Amino acid sequence: MARLYDLVSTIFDRQYLPLMRPSNRPIVDLCHALLGNQGEVSGLSIATEILDVYAKSNDDEKRAFFQFLNDNLDISPDEVVFALDAYKQEPTHANYKAFLAASETPRQELIRRLNQGSGATARLVEMRRDLLAFAKEDRHLSKVDLDFKHLFVSWFNRGFLVLRPISWTSPANILEKIISYEAVHAIDSWDDLRSRLLPDDRRCFAYFHPAIPEEPLIFVEVALTKGIPDSIQNLLVTPNSVAAHAADTAVFYSISNCQAGLAGISFGNFLIKHVVHELSAELPDLETFVTLSPIPGFTKWAENNDHAVDDPEALKPMAAEYLLNAKSRGHAPLDPVAKFHLYNGAQIHALHADADTSEKGMNQSAGMMVNYLYDAKKIAQNHEALAKEGTIAASRPIKNLQKAFGRIQTENVA
Amino acid sequence: MARLYDLVSTIFDRQYLPLMRPSNRPIVDLCHALLGNQGEVSGLSIATEILDVYAKSNDDEKRAFFQFLNDNLDISPDEVVFALDAYKQEPTHANYKAFLAASETPRQELIRRLNQGSGATARLVEMRRDLLAFAKEDRHLSKVDLDFKHLFVSWFNRGFLVLRPISWTSPANILEKIISYEAVHAIDSWDDLRSRLLPDDRRCFAYFHPAIPEEPLIFVEVALTKGIPDSIQNLLVTPNSVAAHAADTAVFYSISNCQAGLAGISFGNFLIKHVVHELSAELPDLETFVTLSPIPGFTKWAENNDHAVDDPEALKPMAAEYLLNAKSRGHAPLDPVAKFHLYNGAQIHALHADADTSEKGMNQSAGMMVNYLYDAKKIAQNHEALAKEGTIAASRPIKNLQKAFGRIQTENVA
Amino acid sequence: MARLYDLVSTIFDRQYLPLMRPSNRPIVDLCHALLGNQGEVSGLSIATEILDVYAKSNDDEKRAFFQFLNDNLDISPDEVVFALDAYKQEPTHANYKAFLAASETPRQELIRRLNQGSGATARLVEMRRDLLAFAKEDRHLSKVDLDFKHLFVSWFNRGFLVLRPISWTSPANILEKIISYEAVHAIDSWDDLRSRLLPDDRRCFAYFHPAIPEEPLIFVEVALTKGIPDSIQNLLVTPNSVAAHAADTAVFYSISNCQAGLAGISFGNFLIKHVVHELSAELPDLETFVTLSPIPGFTKWAENNDHAVDDPEALKPMAAEYLLNAKSRGHAPLDPVAKFHLYNGAQIHALHADADTSEKGMNQSAGMMVNYLYDAKKIAQNHEALAKEGTIAASRPIKNLQKAFGRIQTENVA
Amino acid sequence: MARLYDLVSTIFDRQYLPLMRPSNRPIVDLCHALLGNQGEVSGLSIATEILDVYAKSNDDEKRAFFQFLNDNLDISPDEVVFALDAYKQEPTHANYKAFLAASETPRQELIRRLNQGSGATARLVEMRRDLLAFAKEDRHLSKVDLDFKHLFVSWFNRGFLVLRPISWTSPANILEKIISYEAVHAIDSWDDLRSRLLPDDRRCFAYFHPAIPEEPLIFVEVALTKGIPDSIQNLLVTPNSVAAHAADTAVFYSISNCQAGLAGISFGNFLIKHVVHELSAELPDLETFVTLSPIPGFTKWAENNDHAVDDPEALKPMAAEYLLNAKSRGHAPLDPVAKFHLYNGAQIHALHADADTSEKGMNQSAGMMVNYLYDAKKIAQNHEALAKEGTIAASRPIKNLQKAFGRIQTENVA
Repeated sequence: MARLYDLVSTIFDRQYLPLMRPSNRPIVDLCHALLGNQGEVSGLSIATEILDVYAKSNDDEKRAFFQFLNDNLDISPDEVVFALDAYKQEPTHANYKAFLAASETPRQELIRRLNQGSGATARLVEMRRDLLAFAKEDRHLSKVDLDFKHLFVSWFNRGFLVLRPISWTSPANILEKIISYEAVHAIDSWDDLRSRLLPDDRRCFAYFHPAIPEEPLIFVEVALTKGIPDSIQNLLVTPNSVAAHAADTAVFYSISNCQAGLAGISFGNFLIKHVVHELSAELPDLETFVTLSPIPGFTKWAENNDHAVDDPEALKPMAAEYLLNAKSRGHAPLDPVAKFHLYNGAQIHALHADADTSEKGMNQSAGMMVNYLYDAKKIAQNHEALAKEGTIAASRPIKNLQKAFGRIQTENVA
Repeated sequence: MARLYDLVSTIFDRQYLPLMRPSNRPIVDLCHALLGNQGEVSGLSIATEILDVYAKSNDDEKRAFFQFLNDNLDISPDEVVFALDAYKQEPTHANYKAFLAASETPRQELIRRLNQGSGATARLVEMRRDLLAFAKEDRHLSKVDLDFKHLFVSWFNRGFLVLRPISWTSPANILEKIISYEAVHAIDSWDDLRSRLLPDDRRCFAYFHPAIPEEPLIFVEVALTKGIPDSIQNLLVTPNSVAAHAADTAVFYSISNCQAGLAGISFGNFLIKHVVHELSAELPDLETFVTLSPIPGFTKWAENNDHAVDDPEALKPMAAEYLLNAKSRGHAPLDPVAKFHLYNGAQIHALHADADTSEKGMNQSAGMMVNYLYDAKKIAQNHEALAKEGTIAASRPIKNLQKAFGRIQTENVA
Repeated sequence: MARLYDLVSTIFDRQYLPLMRPSNRPIVDLCHALLGNQGEVSGLSIATEILDVYAKSNDDEKRAFFQFLNDNLDISPDEVVFALDAYKQEPTHANYKAFLAASETPRQELIRRLNQGSGATARLVEMRRDLLAFAKEDRHLSKVDLDFKHLFVSWFNRGFLVLRPISWTSPANILEKIISYEAVHAIDSWDDLRSRLLPDDRRCFAYFHPAIPEEPLIFVEVALTKGIPDSIQNLLVTPNSVAAHAADTAVFYSISNCQAGLAGISFGNFLIKHVVHELSAELPDLETFVTLSPIPGFTKWAENNDHAVDDPEALKPMAAEYLLNAKSRGHAPLDPVAKFHLYNGAQIHALHADADTSEKGMNQSAGMMVNYLYDAKKIAQNHEALAKEGTIAASRPIKNLQKAFGRIQTENVA
Repeated sequence: MARLYDLVSTIFDRQYLPLMRPSNRPIVDLCHALLGNQGEVSGLSIATEILDVYAKSNDDEKRAFFQFLNDNLDISPDEVVFALDAYKQEPTHANYKAFLAASETPRQELIRRLNQGSGATARLVEMRRDLLAFAKEDRHLSKVDLDFKHLFVSWFNRGFLVLRPISWTSPANILEKIISYEAVHAIDSWDDLRSRLLPDDRRCFAYFHPAIPEEPLIFVEVALTKGIPDSIQNLLVTPNSVAAHAADTAVFYSISNCQAGLAGISFGNFLIKHVVHELSAELPDLETFVTLSPIPGFTKWAENNDHAVDDPEALKPMAAEYLLNAKSRGHAPLDPVAKFHLYNGAQIHALHADADTSEKGMNQSAGMMVNYLYDAKKIAQNHEALAKEGTIAASRPIKNLQKAFGRIQTENVA
């Protein structure tokens, strides 16, 4: 009887394999052993022991481990040059193979071999989280991170990510992580969580990786509405007021990255488009896909530029100026959220005052929020115009607001 | 307990995302576009178009594509040297990053970017299958394969593989692949398949990769028996004669690699140990884990060495000599199956005459088969003795047979 | 959204509970024991032993078992009368309870108590299959069946049935049952099955009961087409010629009941409407839902009425006459397939000659087939008109054919 | 791609079928229509409309509905007598069929026909919950309940129940019901729930019915311990102190029925044995299966019998007397929890003072708790001894405590 679904129950059931006893050798010896020829047979045991030892290490020991990776498992430039010379003369298979071997650091192979058995990937993500923290102080360790990142980009390739709806029927152990990882508008309690998942006009989606099935990588919260909302308070507080199938707009009001150990490996741009696609399939009447986003750098920018933020009338023009003209490097918008959505192909659609009256909202953006509009037909051209010419896509009203800012400035000066 | 079940239903639900229309540009242009800056936004569409165009190409076009990868997307040795010099002088993060960028071929990044969207990984595995076939003739293309293999080793890392039982309740589309991929003892029909899956004393396990959920990568067929069987005919033909819980022996009688495009990326050694572990957990009374294996190189070796295989008495001593003393390179056993199991930590346990009387069995091994024994306590030491000293582990009777061969030879000479 | 997925994995995991040893008492004693007070604790063991003993019984023993149910576990009319008198005087809870107890046969409670543990429901369905076979000869046993049927109607209540798509990814053990149960157009082989499941323009759906998860109860095969097909040969033989989303018509070309032990418990009328609903949701462009049905009683009826079936011209008018005017009891159409679909609210849509040229098709209907049309808007009124007034719904062409038959008859007479 | 698991995702996906528009007829008319001949075709719509109308009814309307069932859909005794006479004379199939038809109330058939479509079973369970509440005042309505109960006993037959582990990975919508339904030791918060589910030494199991997949019917909470615990405080408060595989005892410390509408349909006795079986399979080292139970009737009994509960020394003897000798009807133990476990085959194992110092625990049992021991070898004989001879199984210490009570009483009298 019970075997009909055995397929399902075992699909991710990568049970712990039987391991040899811990050898209690120093972690450095273990690393050399794992990189040695014996790897084939006892590799899983050694890899697991290294991860176990690491997990129990204190910060100094961890730092020493990364220092070891940096110093002892680096490339040998001479060997690379030697291999390269041969390849330059004869670009053969054998010479390219020798070059590949010489130009890859042993630590990269080490990380690859550590990724065995149940749970190893998650533990390596945690290891990189530590590394990134240490590298803030010991900058040279960031070199080691390049090898982690190189592998993680391969492992967390878009093709391997899985989109899952998060709902009130999701497992509690996943949901408690949603509560904990929400980075934009904090979730206070399980009741608060339910109010964001259970109503018919709410949705949530997350990316997962098959090897870390219990950890969301990034998630987005969505509200279905009639018309574009102009404040986060209304969106979060108001009880469910529209049936999903009657909505015309999907509002992405919170996007949170979950894993510090995956910093710099981007999922977000893909996620939004994927969710747009899912929602369109489920609810064909949706016409507008829009964010309700914070403007985290606004107040600081205004301060730096001596723009007073005490005149309510002047706020929206000032914000339009900030979003359209404040740049960091090259064409890149200064505001990090703007940068993300605009490079992603969205356009600035509307600005709202008194839209986030929380302490955080008042502090960072004088209470303003902005809608970025994802218009499928314009995504590619918006992105290209920004990438090539530095042109930021914006609606007519936003452009007018920016012009008004110019006039105000001129008047003030005058 | 019941951990991840709900995940399963959505885990592979990576629906096709909406794509832009095909641009109908040449594949080479598309590759450059995918590697360009626009990748972020329209990458998925371009990647999919490249894979579509490739799939419709004829052999000449495919060869031209690989030639393009070889010629135009190679490293620039001068750039590598330049970066390397800087790194040698100052091993900083920036210099290492520049070196990494210079020393990785653009084709590697191309392959990585092709791996997006639903089904891309499977299509890249097929692409490498083509490449390997072409490289047999155009040997220089094997250089391009080094980049494929480098990525595939990462993607098909042990930590990402999933072991699934294959049973008569498995989906038919999976089972028809088992029929098609069986490489050792052909499965004639669905009835034949059922007789290998349904009886209580039969088991089958396969490794899958989450991104290719409908394709087994490698599978092993197992018979549960009382005592070690001495012929494949009996094992396959005899009706179910023992209840699973009454068995003391698990016989691995067929191991098949499924994907030509994954050649050289080893799963087999891990698979057997994993299955030993699974079976031990399910059936604690199992004591012996053993193969019933062909000796594919025997007849050819005998011929090459002018050993006549017409004396039934002499066959087993001769086979013992072959398995213990015929070497390819260094210590490596000449017989490919022996090489696999012995490096894997198994030992030669017993030889059987008239054990495979099929045409193939008679031709390649004069009807003989061999049991390799997986004894958990000796796996590491067997492997190490072979790797370090070239010592092949074998049972007393096998060693005696080999000695008998020596005597026979001496007598014959005399 | 993704509601109940985790449930699935455990939903059928009703493992065998530990049972006491078989008592080896006669089945009659076991039945009395199961009906006795001890039932609470050891009921599961006794019930399982009864089902085991029954399964091993020969036909005579089985007949004796049913005879025992008939003779010894009947109601006692005197007790019913006694309880009824009390109830008539005072329709109280206690008196009604006593009446209920008296008016239900002990064999009904026995069957209910037999339905414990894993697999019991399926075994009781098999038991009824035997009973129905015996009752054909020993008509009085059909009385016992009334109790089985009474319970089965409750257990297989519509609310408990589960619709599942059957596809080429369904488990092989389910699919081999589809092959075996197909009752209309035999499935010759696994290849034949694949050709009915895998193409994009084919669908199959079955009802299951949660307590018998590996046994379909009834299934329907569907072809998606452009226009209404006029022969089964074309439908089955022609390769996939239309993409599912381009089809405008869904053709139900085969409906098979699977369980002889569930005879008389109707699922079919519900199934078709349920599948219409599912297909409409998946493929909104479908406009027409129609069967391609045999006319199994035609030739026999023609013979009985001395209508010669050798004039091709006359066949379709004659068939129209048969379908519209040949009645069994009251208004009920004589043809069993017509009766099923017409009472189900369908209407006769079109007749096709040379539509089933198989031996069976030629024999039973001179090669003709008929389309019954399910028009959601007319189902209720068609049914009602038939149920109340005996009016059979038919298209204009069918009615004209029937009139033509009248003319032909008159001419022939003249 | 995504079709591999379509089986799974649809297994319980009984979507709402398309319904006709509500007719807005009075509920009584709808009931007659549902019982009429048209049922076949439009039954689902009518049934759904009845359940919708009922759900929106106020208490008076609901009472009127049940009154209608009682008065108008009762049996006709005359018809039963008539059918019975015929059957008495000739016990034929036809006569038995007529008798069955006459002796079953139309309301029973009505309830059966209401059970169609998605969610109907759950709504009928709610309907019976209302009915039971009304019947407390209007006693004659309990007659109607006999028909509900008759059907529910069939529908919730043991063979249809599904045991599912409840864990911290269960869906949140199920878990919030566990919080809400816990009837013995209240769960204060999600954190409290996690502390009962997540630790390695905690388990929880629930019975579900496939047609009500989101509602547990009954659940039991289990702690794994070394030795038998003597207080609920320690069990609930103490952090996880033993690894599951090191435990020798499983303690059932809370059993809660969830559905008021299923009152009187027993699951509990089956549940405990089923869970014992599951735990034994998972953890073969478990030796002892025991409850830690309240003694809810103790204080009241002591009061009624003028036993003062202020002498700590006397409490345990007094409780032993209560559990062994206080009877309700016949042999039945007076204490409801004792009655449940003792009839279930358990025996009184040990008494603990200060074992439940909550307000509720002090009030109902002066802080005492009791262990009932489930010893697989003695369950049948314990049950039988109680059922036949009224003998209550108890350990030697408990019997000694009861004797001590006798001595104390004698002394007090003296």
